[in-house]
Amino acid sequence: MSYNTFGRIFRFTTWGESHGPAIGCVVDGVPSNISLSEGDIQPYLDLRKPGQSKHTTQRKEPDTVQILSGVFEGKTTGSPISLMIENQDARSKDYSEIKDKFRPGHADYTYHMKYGFRDYRGGGRSSARETAMRVAAGAVARKILGDTIKIQAGVVQLGELKLGDDRNWDAVYKNPMYCPDETVLDEWVDYLDDIRKAGSSVGAIVECRVSGVPAGLGAPVYAKIESDLAAAMMGINAAKGVEIGDGFAFVGPRGEDTLDQIRIKDGKPEFQSNHMGGVLGGITTGQDLIFRVAFKPTSSILVPQKTITTDMMETEIVTKGRHDPCVGLRGTPVVEAMAANVLADHLMMSKANTL
Amino acid sequence: MSYNTFGRIFRFTTWGESHGPAIGCVVDGVPSNISLSEGDIQPYLDLRKPGQSKHTTQRKEPDTVQILSGVFEGKTTGSPISLMIENQDARSKDYSEIKDKFRPGHADYTYHMKYGFRDYRGGGRSSARETAMRVAAGAVARKILGDTIKIQAGVVQLGELKLGDDRNWDAVYKNPMYCPDETVLDEWVDYLDDIRKAGSSVGAIVECRVSGVPAGLGAPVYAKIESDLAAAMMGINAAKGVEIGDGFAFVGPRGEDTLDQIRIKDGKPEFQSNHMGGVLGGITTGQDLIFRVAFKPTSSILVPQKTITTDMMETEIVTKGRHDPCVGLRGTPVVEAMAANVLADHLMMSKANTL
Amino acid sequence: MSYNTFGRIFRFTTWGESHGPAIGCVVDGVPSNISLSEGDIQPYLDLRKPGQSKHTTQRKEPDTVQILSGVFEGKTTGSPISLMIENQDARSKDYSEIKDKFRPGHADYTYHMKYGFRDYRGGGRSSARETAMRVAAGAVARKILGDTIKIQAGVVQLGELKLGDDRNWDAVYKNPMYCPDETVLDEWVDYLDDIRKAGSSVGAIVECRVSGVPAGLGAPVYAKIESDLAAAMMGINAAKGVEIGDGFAFVGPRGEDTLDQIRIKDGKPEFQSNHMGGVLGGITTGQDLIFRVAFKPTSSILVPQKTITTDMMETEIVTKGRHDPCVGLRGTPVVEAMAANVLADHLMMSKANTL
Amino acid sequence: MSYNTFGRIFRFTTWGESHGPAIGCVVDGVPSNISLSEGDIQPYLDLRKPGQSKHTTQRKEPDTVQILSGVFEGKTTGSPISLMIENQDARSKDYSEIKDKFRPGHADYTYHMKYGFRDYRGGGRSSARETAMRVAAGAVARKILGDTIKIQAGVVQLGELKLGDDRNWDAVYKNPMYCPDETVLDEWVDYLDDIRKAGSSVGAIVECRVSGVPAGLGAPVYAKIESDLAAAMMGINAAKGVEIGDGFAFVGPRGEDTLDQIRIKDGKPEFQSNHMGGVLGGITTGQDLIFRVAFKPTSSILVPQKTITTDMMETEIVTKGRHDPCVGLRGTPVVEAMAANVLADHLMMSKANTL
Repeated sequence: MSYNTFGRIFRFTTWGESHGPAIGCVVDGVPSNISLSEGDIQPYLDLRKPGQSKHTTQRKEPDTVQILSGVFEGKTTGSPISLMIENQDARSKDYSEIKDKFRPGHADYTYHMKYGFRDYRGGGRSSARETAMRVAAGAVARKILGDTIKIQAGVVQLGELKLGDDRNWDAVYKNPMYCPDETVLDEWVDYLDDIRKAGSSVGAIVECRVSGVPAGLGAPVYAKIESDLAAAMMGINAAKGVEIGDGFAFVGPRGEDTLDQIRIKDGKPEFQSNHMGGVLGGITTGQDLIFRVAFKPTSSILVPQKTITTDMMETEIVTKGRHDPCVGLRGTPVVEAMAANVLADHLMMSKANTL
Repeated sequence: MSYNTFGRIFRFTTWGESHGPAIGCVVDGVPSNISLSEGDIQPYLDLRKPGQSKHTTQRKEPDTVQILSGVFEGKTTGSPISLMIENQDARSKDYSEIKDKFRPGHADYTYHMKYGFRDYRGGGRSSARETAMRVAAGAVARKILGDTIKIQAGVVQLGELKLGDDRNWDAVYKNPMYCPDETVLDEWVDYLDDIRKAGSSVGAIVECRVSGVPAGLGAPVYAKIESDLAAAMMGINAAKGVEIGDGFAFVGPRGEDTLDQIRIKDGKPEFQSNHMGGVLGGITTGQDLIFRVAFKPTSSILVPQKTITTDMMETEIVTKGRHDPCVGLRGTPVVEAMAANVLADHLMMSKANTL
Repeated sequence: MSYNTFGRIFRFTTWGESHGPAIGCVVDGVPSNISLSEGDIQPYLDLRKPGQSKHTTQRKEPDTVQILSGVFEGKTTGSPISLMIENQDARSKDYSEIKDKFRPGHADYTYHMKYGFRDYRGGGRSSARETAMRVAAGAVARKILGDTIKIQAGVVQLGELKLGDDRNWDAVYKNPMYCPDETVLDEWVDYLDDIRKAGSSVGAIVECRVSGVPAGLGAPVYAKIESDLAAAMMGINAAKGVEIGDGFAFVGPRGEDTLDQIRIKDGKPEFQSNHMGGVLGGITTGQDLIFRVAFKPTSSILVPQKTITTDMMETEIVTKGRHDPCVGLRGTPVVEAMAANVLADHLMMSKANTL
Repeated sequence: MSYNTFGRIFRFTTWGESHGPAIGCVVDGVPSNISLSEGDIQPYLDLRKPGQSKHTTQRKEPDTVQILSGVFEGKTTGSPISLMIENQDARSKDYSEIKDKFRPGHADYTYHMKYGFRDYRGGGRSSARETAMRVAAGAVARKILGDTIKIQAGVVQLGELKLGDDRNWDAVYKNPMYCPDETVLDEWVDYLDDIRKAGSSVGAIVECRVSGVPAGLGAPVYAKIESDLAAAMMGINAAKGVEIGDGFAFVGPRGEDTLDQIRIKDGKPEFQSNHMGGVLGGITTGQDLIFRVAFKPTSSILVPQKTITTDMMETEIVTKGRHDPCVGLRGTPVVEAMAANVLADHLMMSKANTL
């Protein structure tokens, strides 16, 4: 059994392999009368697009999205929205190196064990290329969320290099490190260059802040917003950890140093801090949602690795080709998109709640 | 909209408030012909039961589970299994302190914002008491998993105190710290005593290891096993972070130091390490599943906190009563139970997959 | 795999066997702040309650419903509502006649084939007693629907006896035939008396009219309101057919004699007829919803039937005991309840739709 | 909210409008290692294809299906299968007659009420053209079902003309009436010719028989196989009624004349009749599944109808163009396909059930 649908009311189903003819998704549950065109989606895809700098894979894909259904005269009709990107750069030339070997860190071994065989062309379904459609769906989700809810992510740790507490979110998509702090750029670029030249890779932490979220989104008990966010983030390729608010840093300090006390300001409740990351009991407080996602180092590296063949023979492998030295960088727009997808779903669930 | 059902094929729906007449759950999707009695469930509830030491809340609940349906002549019938625990110690005496105030760190504020009012008796639906039913469902899940799959969790960090790498899982339920290392017990007990006496609280990290998992469980793309585990864990009360394998520690080292290389041993694949935590691409490798959950400090403390009333007036609050100085401790059996629930669901999904 | 949950947003999960300690359901997705007490539910259960006349089974059950969660100070909290009825008359005395024999027309054979064994006490989970919980859930659904939407069902055909076109819906629960036409009562009562005395049984058609439905409920393509109604009705014990509007009578006349033409009256659209039964393309028109459900004759009869034992030996069976000569009669409140459950779900889905 | 996904484990999501660039579906949950090509799907689409005789719409569509994902080297990979048909004959010329008028019997009015506006080009999403994708998904479902389970449907009543009890299923796709009895063909063709020449239309009943179904498929309580079939059939465009086994004809005879008694033949259970249509309590008996679907007359007719405009002005409409005088005819392969989709889902659910 595979499972390729995300969401409850706002939901999308993705399809396609990295080296098949196309990838796509069907976005269902979108209200009618929302203006939507390819121009609303393409910019987000472009942020994730490979080949834009030497720090990302050199695979060249225009990643041009087409809307095939669900929009009429520039507006959503309430019918499912079919989005498709044709694969341009599906170089099907030479898979002999990886065809019969399991690449460590990739899903080759597990797909083989589960399905009995696998589409060995560039990862097939397990390729991060699938995340393009999460980004496309996320662009539709943002149209539902409107302008008030603002989602911003950026790389706050690159391998051993960690940002301080300041964030300049507007800087993120203006630099190749997707970093919300331009002052560290030179250092980061040099660091990643060295790693890339060594044929190696490194992990990253992406932080996401969502502002403008109304209080009351989320749902106890098994659809807590942090629970849905965790599932959404951990489902991104290479993600291995997720935390909300202070997260793992909650373990250490005393309770009284972690509680967000409340005062009244201008007649409205005002939290004095945001350790909780904007949620209490699975429901948004109205503060910014803050969470972080840990990405492992890219598994495709030039350093030879011991592995086995599908015939259970020992061998070595070097995964040549076009790879990001840090997949976490391009994970940034995917994190944003999945946050949008979760929030659009919860916004619509929330409307269903009110008599 | 609330949402109180967990799982796809093996799934359960919980109900009940901490101070209502009873709590319960309905477990659906269980195959027939599995032997099941209250005796299979009660021991797991007892592990989570409050009031067993001074380190956990002194609320006294026998937490005696009853099976109301789905079992006939000692065996499951394939029909839904209704489990119920009557609330014994629902002291409904004095809620005046918390009735009209929002306790910081609790869901009081968000429930009020979402639902317009709330059941103020001890947290109502947002109480950790609901997790008793996750444990009960987990006991049923374990019957599906059988004896080969073994799930073990324990506290590996208590506030500032962190274990080394050694684990003695068998020790966990023999000590009040739910700790898989008896050598630190004296230190941990003293540490937590001081915190308790100070009316304060502290967070914890619970680590979980699942051994005996067959390769091939899990499902791309939106039902990855790490994604489902993340949702399950992040949905536990007070959980604020989750990581699998090396998790956040993946960020730092180079790719070549994080890949689990493969050799052949006795004719079978053998991974040389387990950085990935037993999953690749959302599917189990057959290695141990390893993940960790971060719990924030208990929010109910004796240290006065600034807050507001439901009438939007500034006030202070001290949450007296019976509370765990570290909720993470009793989170241990809940983590195990939720792991069992996720795995039982995936085991059954996996069977659906094979023609 | 069993599947005991109904609905998408408004949804309920039922549990319990006819001769177990209790039956119950968990109703989830109910908005908060709706006044609800046992007094809102009990009257509907009483309409379905057995033993009220010689025309229904003489099993005596007070069927007293308890609310165990989800209601606080007389209002729904937004948390799951647990409803339970204890089985009083679970005469567990003598099942020797049916224990090892498959009763024709009952689910004995299929449960045995599917599950390997069965709870032979009075049908276990397949008993029509489960429908009591559909009625209980339906009472909650009606609170969501409010007073404007009115659901009325009644028996319009009893065996060979068929009503004309006139309906007096208010008469239904004032006569033992659940018939919306008192003028036929003497004839119907005599007819059913004869059947009952003969130890036989007969089928019925229940018609349901829902008035006050707003236009725009329903959802293309796979959640059409007629599709959901059909599933809901066909899932009722003994139901074997369902039709909406003219239904099977659409086959015969020409298209022009079946179309509901539209005029303007008082500035609003007015359909000139209602052949379609209040739906077009899966969505309500605002006209009355009209549908009918066919119930087969009660399978438990005193006329001996050829059957086999669980050991695959030929035998005969007479299903003695307390049985309705026409199960369709008490199907009436169940049809109403399931209509309420479908509509409450769609009303809430519809709210989710609007930005 | 729209809802365009069908099924639980084997499930598909359809998209596309009748006059958009393409229609398609994503089939998810298909096991790996099943041989699949366009050649397995196209023949079923061809059976449903319009323009094959004067008795069906003259819209010319080659309806050529493409597989865009989920198949590698001729076999399913376990990943979602994306199917697409480009719309060739999307004559976008002249919708002025229907653009601002609600066609009686069509979904124009209800879509307008629900969504605020509608894609007026030939029905948009509500067009029966969507059923092409149900047929495509059904072709994949048949691959899961294998050769043992055989699904056959045919028109057993055309307007006033009704077949006797004999069925020659092999004849269905060899005649333009989709009729399982060639002896009536001349009469039926003349009858439908007259209706077509009159610019009118007529309804039909399609009967479906599924043989080779193993006992034990289906699931109590809310996923009974007859319940899922009813939803599947009632969701087909123009379907207004569904019945299983004797269906509505159960109402009339006595119970003893409707029970399927059981004997032993060659050591195996043998039912002496099949009034129940192959199900007991929601689960298959192993007998043939028999059910019937009532289709209303085509709503697009040349006979002028009173209606209103979107501006709420009274007007008349004649729906010119290419229409089937009896939509039920081409409903035949759709009924078969939806039966296949339901059964494939239940077959896979059934596998999940067994430990």
